[in-house]
Amino acid sequence: MRLYDFSWSGNCHKIKLFTSIISLPIEIVPIDLLNAEHLRPPFQDLNPLCELPVFEDGTTVLRDSAAILVYLARRYGGEAWFPTEPEEMAQICQWFGTAAANVNFGPALARGARHFGYPADNAMVTRVSDRLFLALEKHLSSREWLELRRPTLADVAMFPYMASAPEGGLSLEPYEAIRHWIGRVESLPGYIAMPSVVAA
Amino acid sequence: MRLYDFSWSGNCHKIKLFTSIISLPIEIVPIDLLNAEHLRPPFQDLNPLCELPVFEDGTTVLRDSAAILVYLARRYGGEAWFPTEPEEMAQICQWFGTAAANVNFGPALARGARHFGYPADNAMVTRVSDRLFLALEKHLSSREWLELRRPTLADVAMFPYMASAPEGGLSLEPYEAIRHWIGRVESLPGYIAMPSVVAA
Repeated sequence: MRLYDFSWSGNCHKIKLFTSIISLPIEIVPIDLLNAEHLRPPFQDLNPLCELPVFEDGTTVLRDSAAILVYLARRYGGEAWFPTEPEEMAQICQWFGTAAANVNFGPALARGARHFGYPADNAMVTRVSDRLFLALEKHLSSREWLELRRPTLADVAMFPYMASAPEGGLSLEPYEAIRHWIGRVESLPGYIAMPSVVAA
Repeated sequence: MRLYDFSWSGNCHKIKLFTSIISLPIEIVPIDLLNAEHLRPPFQDLNPLCELPVFEDGTTVLRDSAAILVYLARRYGGEAWFPTEPEEMAQICQWFGTAAANVNFGPALARGARHFGYPADNAMVTRVSDRLFLALEKHLSSREWLELRRPTLADVAMFPYMASAPEGGLSLEPYEAIRHWIGRVESLPGYIAMPSVVAA
């Protein structure tokens, strides 16, 4: 089982975090994003969208962090992380969409712009992030976990770029419920932190 | 069963398209996006992210078009559209991520900027769209459907904003495989078209 990885990618970190939590050994293949290795063959042939992570398990090749989490949970992680009951499954999937759209083009892009020179429209990033943080704060003000009263793939998918929002200059100080939720994820057995890009 | 809807939203259209294909009657509740009804209560209370679609089925309330599709397929649509086998399910989920990120911030945003005045960074929209179209063209050059050699939720999730890309000023003329795939979706029994925003 192999993960094409960039150390500071929150999307890659989701896979490393979840495989650590469920104690699944995984081989890491570093891709040099800073030198555009993802924009050239052979990586480009593996994922023509030129995005990390990419994951291999035997002949299975998958891109997209949420899709990889779904695969891992269905094949190795059991029902608890991603149940098949329609409403429960859909509740978790909602956060995959939020992670792919609002988080990627909000706090993740703010961090990428500041530390990796990603081109970004600051007004859009701020608008997307503000609405996301307010909505998430409201959601978590009456819940310990995003869905189902227990940790699920929703928490794994949302965690890395929310926890690293301050690295993009976005303070979580006003968002007490979000900060408490981050603390709960950090307390999960098997939790591993994403390396800080600020300290690098 | 009720859909909070905006006629020209491709994300809403996914739900109308899929329920039409599987012959599921659904009540439409129009939300006046052009007059910011989605930014105020009561809609804002239904989805604090202030995004359409929102879907209700009895006490179940869901946001995010892909999550709603997952719910409908698991509860009403059978195995064919969204199977539970881990690799097959994950292959389809890959396109939910692409639809939420690359499509929403590429061709969907180009169309929204041109016709609804959405603020957009044109350079980003073009960069995201170009890479998406090239990758999708390559993927579809050897396939009739996005995954599993049959129509699945992946096709439903990717279709509306790809088919309406020309309304955002993005030509599909150079992308023969994409245009043929659009034609195949349009030929599905139960297919319904999204109203043209250009003709409006």
